[in-house]
Amino acid sequence: MIKKDVLQVAVLGAGTVGTGVYKVIDGLQEDMEHRIGCGLVISKILVRDASKEREGVDASLLTDQWSEIINDADIDIVVEVMGGIEPAKTYIIEALTAGKSVVTANKDLMAEHGRQLLDLAEEHHCDLMFEASVAGGIPILRPLKHCLAGNHMSEIIGIVNGTTNFILSKMTEEGCGFEETLKLAQDLGYAESDPTADVEGLDAARKMAIMASIAFHSRVTFGDVYTEGITKITEKDIAYAKEMDRVIKLLGVAKNTEEGIEVKVHPMLIDHNHPLASVNDSFNAVFVRGDAVGDVMFYGRGAGELPTASAVVGDILETARHIKNECTGETGCTCYKNIPIKPSLESESKYFVRLQVEDRAGTLAGISSVFGNNAVSIERLAQKNSKDNIAEIVVITHKVKEKDITNSLTILKTMPLVKSIDSVIRVY
Amino acid sequence: MIKKDVLQVAVLGAGTVGTGVYKVIDGLQEDMEHRIGCGLVISKILVRDASKEREGVDASLLTDQWSEIINDADIDIVVEVMGGIEPAKTYIIEALTAGKSVVTANKDLMAEHGRQLLDLAEEHHCDLMFEASVAGGIPILRPLKHCLAGNHMSEIIGIVNGTTNFILSKMTEEGCGFEETLKLAQDLGYAESDPTADVEGLDAARKMAIMASIAFHSRVTFGDVYTEGITKITEKDIAYAKEMDRVIKLLGVAKNTEEGIEVKVHPMLIDHNHPLASVNDSFNAVFVRGDAVGDVMFYGRGAGELPTASAVVGDILETARHIKNECTGETGCTCYKNIPIKPSLESESKYFVRLQVEDRAGTLAGISSVFGNNAVSIERLAQKNSKDNIAEIVVITHKVKEKDITNSLTILKTMPLVKSIDSVIRVY
Repeated sequence: MIKKDVLQVAVLGAGTVGTGVYKVIDGLQEDMEHRIGCGLVISKILVRDASKEREGVDASLLTDQWSEIINDADIDIVVEVMGGIEPAKTYIIEALTAGKSVVTANKDLMAEHGRQLLDLAEEHHCDLMFEASVAGGIPILRPLKHCLAGNHMSEIIGIVNGTTNFILSKMTEEGCGFEETLKLAQDLGYAESDPTADVEGLDAARKMAIMASIAFHSRVTFGDVYTEGITKITEKDIAYAKEMDRVIKLLGVAKNTEEGIEVKVHPMLIDHNHPLASVNDSFNAVFVRGDAVGDVMFYGRGAGELPTASAVVGDILETARHIKNECTGETGCTCYKNIPIKPSLESESKYFVRLQVEDRAGTLAGISSVFGNNAVSIERLAQKNSKDNIAEIVVITHKVKEKDITNSLTILKTMPLVKSIDSVIRVY
Repeated sequence: MIKKDVLQVAVLGAGTVGTGVYKVIDGLQEDMEHRIGCGLVISKILVRDASKEREGVDASLLTDQWSEIINDADIDIVVEVMGGIEPAKTYIIEALTAGKSVVTANKDLMAEHGRQLLDLAEEHHCDLMFEASVAGGIPILRPLKHCLAGNHMSEIIGIVNGTTNFILSKMTEEGCGFEETLKLAQDLGYAESDPTADVEGLDAARKMAIMASIAFHSRVTFGDVYTEGITKITEKDIAYAKEMDRVIKLLGVAKNTEEGIEVKVHPMLIDHNHPLASVNDSFNAVFVRGDAVGDVMFYGRGAGELPTASAVVGDILETARHIKNECTGETGCTCYKNIPIKPSLESESKYFVRLQVEDRAGTLAGISSVFGNNAVSIERLAQKNSKDNIAEIVVITHKVKEKDITNSLTILKTMPLVKSIDSVIRVY
């Protein structure tokens, strides 16, 4: 048991999450001794401009000098909530090397350099915790690493990006288009002025890489994740989905198959009875499947000042208990397997395909034969609307390989009778 | 770091859960070293009759002598999955006193004697883990204790009994009565031959006591929980609920209010849009609300051989890591507050009341005035059916104190024009 009465924390960053962490720690002062066995205070906050006033934050804690933190032997825990790869990565490496435990909310960093940082933490007997990097306030990484450790996990399916879920929910409710709804999301503060990372699925891909690494005990990095965003989803697709009692969600799907790990982020039609179908607005939810536990779902706020701070502070308190009990560094990198990544083209799914074709005899036969020749078996095909000699065709395939549907579509695109392929969306 | 190569586990009980634990541990042998840093085997299993053959279980591990386990210095972890208060309690006390960490799935014991056992564990620097005692395989206790430790929790609402949820789901789907559906549940193995603990809400009450103690950091025992079962719910109530876009669920509700902790288990009408409304069959779900995280929900299988074993084995592996790292006993009893239990009669709720009355002039006025004189304000009152001079009246109240509704009903029962009060169900 370490003899320190009060542990000291430095927070790197005073943005939304940093301010949230400050508030939550402040609100816990009366309970701290009981919850971790000693006091705990934030003693330094690293910001770009230390002279800028920040409401509710004690100005005397602010510094713009990393050296003041890394060289301060009294600081026990470094909390990185600045985001981005650099300088966050350098700071974390220096902190761990100096024997300071680290709590981070940085998904970019953990999805890219997780192994290196976790190995470093283990080497220096430090904790490196990152619960807040996935699904904000929802407890998911610790449950996967600890509570579900007796399972062989086979699948994770999640709605792990609040911005896109808000946009798709609104499009579904109001019947509006993507651009219009994105604008609304930006006005309401749900989407950033540059929404690329969210709407292209990059943010979700990072979270899936982190979760897959933990669940399957094999390292998956951001680059391993096949990613498709929601920018091409139209109100028409959503209406067709409704007709089939389905909704469109941006899903992260990770599977541990016999041919390797499959990790993807893409829009998907799911049945309206599936528990994920009713996860709306900016809420997140993660479904996991283990051989012993079966299906478990975790649901809550995936972002926001206080929900994310809840996860960060949970990690800070856990780290503090470990410091008190001198058992930091207990859980390093848990990836002890080396499972290959399954090529995306080999993965299988049902597909919804919507295309515009010439409305004349032989068109349906021509299209069907392209699918048939490429091992794409069709569950349902319907001609929906016809106008000015152009007909809309909607196809639902059986489960087919991605390479086969891709080949089919490549050929269809070259056929004069096909005017456009408007939508290709996976079906769960 | 302890030098042992293989940790030894004794399992007390070889019923459903015990067998599940055996299977799960068996299936993890290849991964064990990687997951906890050493080997781990089950070396003894305590049973009533050691001569009885058990399929898939190595007979040489069986013993009917507790002394062979408690006196075996090589046994590091005792796993209690026998259930009931005694002899489980004595065995756990002796194990902890001997410095052996304990994992238990025993809700009866933890809801009644949790404080004593956790204090004892702390005194002897042992772990005492009990994740499986609430909601089977769903990770909920560790998330509450660790991931959400930065929150002041205000509310827990849960469907934590699979048997009653199965019965109510079936009654809703099929429109059948309680007795008939209970029989079906028994035939399918979802309900025991003596179903009292489930259908009277006692099982759920124990789980709520355990969760409330952890969430509110103040000890709540089984006796503190107000409990009402589902035996009086009729197909008529369910049909009326449907008419109002609601479903009836057996809910555990725990609130940390200014006047004290309120913990109850009772049937309740909830809106069909509430996430708990779509938790059907034998699934469990727990909703928690914290000041930082907001609402979080955990969902999965609340019982069964392997789901419960998943939780038990998660605790075993965590304890094993703590033994390896010499930091057992880190988390003892987390109840450092002493919040009073709010008397049930002081709690507030909306109510659905269904009664049979004489169908004559003045009846409605008479009933309304009883409610009015007792501070029960009415949101909706409707006369539903009339036959043989008897009319059915359905009342929905505003939020009222339990003592006021109770007083009203006591008076109504004495009135000659009231033939019977058929249902009194809370509305969420």
